[in-house]
Amino acid sequence: MFLFTKNFDEQKARAMAGLRKALEEGKVDEDIIPLLEKINSLENYFTTSSCSGRISVMEMPEFGDKVNAAWLGKWHREVELGEVLEAIKKHSSGQLWFLVRSPILHVGARTMEGAVKLLNLAIGLGFKYSNIKSVSHKKLLVEIRSTERMDVPLGADGELWVSEDYIERIVDIANEQVRRFKGKLKRLEEEVEKL
Amino acid sequence: MFLFTKNFDEQKARAMAGLRKALEEGKVDEDIIPLLEKINSLENYFTTSSCSGRISVMEMPEFGDKVNAAWLGKWHREVELGEVLEAIKKHSSGQLWFLVRSPILHVGARTMEGAVKLLNLAIGLGFKYSNIKSVSHKKLLVEIRSTERMDVPLGADGELWVSEDYIERIVDIANEQVRRFKGKLKRLEEEVEKL
Repeated sequence: MFLFTKNFDEQKARAMAGLRKALEEGKVDEDIIPLLEKINSLENYFTTSSCSGRISVMEMPEFGDKVNAAWLGKWHREVELGEVLEAIKKHSSGQLWFLVRSPILHVGARTMEGAVKLLNLAIGLGFKYSNIKSVSHKKLLVEIRSTERMDVPLGADGELWVSEDYIERIVDIANEQVRRFKGKLKRLEEEVEKL
Repeated sequence: MFLFTKNFDEQKARAMAGLRKALEEGKVDEDIIPLLEKINSLENYFTTSSCSGRISVMEMPEFGDKVNAAWLGKWHREVELGEVLEAIKKHSSGQLWFLVRSPILHVGARTMEGAVKLLNLAIGLGFKYSNIKSVSHKKLLVEIRSTERMDVPLGADGELWVSEDYIERIVDIANEQVRRFKGKLKRLEEEVEKL
């Protein structure tokens, strides 16, 4: 059974080349870079993809059709009401949503034992939705994920269903969630070296 | 490492006794019972806890304080606007939320290999957030979970931030999510025997 990742070091080398390229192209969320570097400095782990968490305004042609969804605004930080209203103005058709997503990190582990250690560390630091995402001889993948999330319908087909006051309220709540998960990322950055 | 669950058969017997008690007390969501029975009829798995998915109206004293949160209304089915409005009327203090949660099943597996087989089946049937929740010699736990979810702030401290029209819209969207995840549960019920 799948206790060790085959060709772990080759996989890691490839992932690190991909990460260097993404860094050069500015495609990695800045405030998560030190954490990625710390994880990748460990012998038995490497990061494959990551998002530092975000607030977004999204337009979906049809319910659940994420493939054709378009971001009208996306921020990996706290937002101001004005920015969100600007994004909402761009809405023309389909369903309009205001979303918050927690940080997600995908981390390849050399061994199942290492995967479980990282999983338990992350859960202990408040990343309560962390789990082992896939298990095969090709891949032992830990997903680090927290509970912060909002999914708020704002309108559809060009029509807005809520008031500006309401949007201000949900922006406040969203910013509180961002502060909360940024704090968790910070703690993970501090603790991950212990592995 | 953790390839087999120790004392699997004893654990299963205990879980089955617990399930029988919960069934007698009417504490199990009715429409998930046939699925639980099918999983538990398999030699290498047993269910430990489950929710068939739900729509709810919840009051939280403070942001994120789930311990002291109270359900003003909770339904494991499609809802009518009137029921939701009734629940909202009970709101008095703290934050008021309208929530949708996908079904969740926790399934103990005898072996890591069995856990991975169930995980992959569930993901293939649309339970895309499924994962391996915990791994130890005491427990190999698969979490079966889907993507449907809503987290909509409705008001705070007795004040409502949205209109009845808006609530009608989000009830429609929520009911669509319920139909969607009920369909997935049905397919899982049909396919799980293949394990």
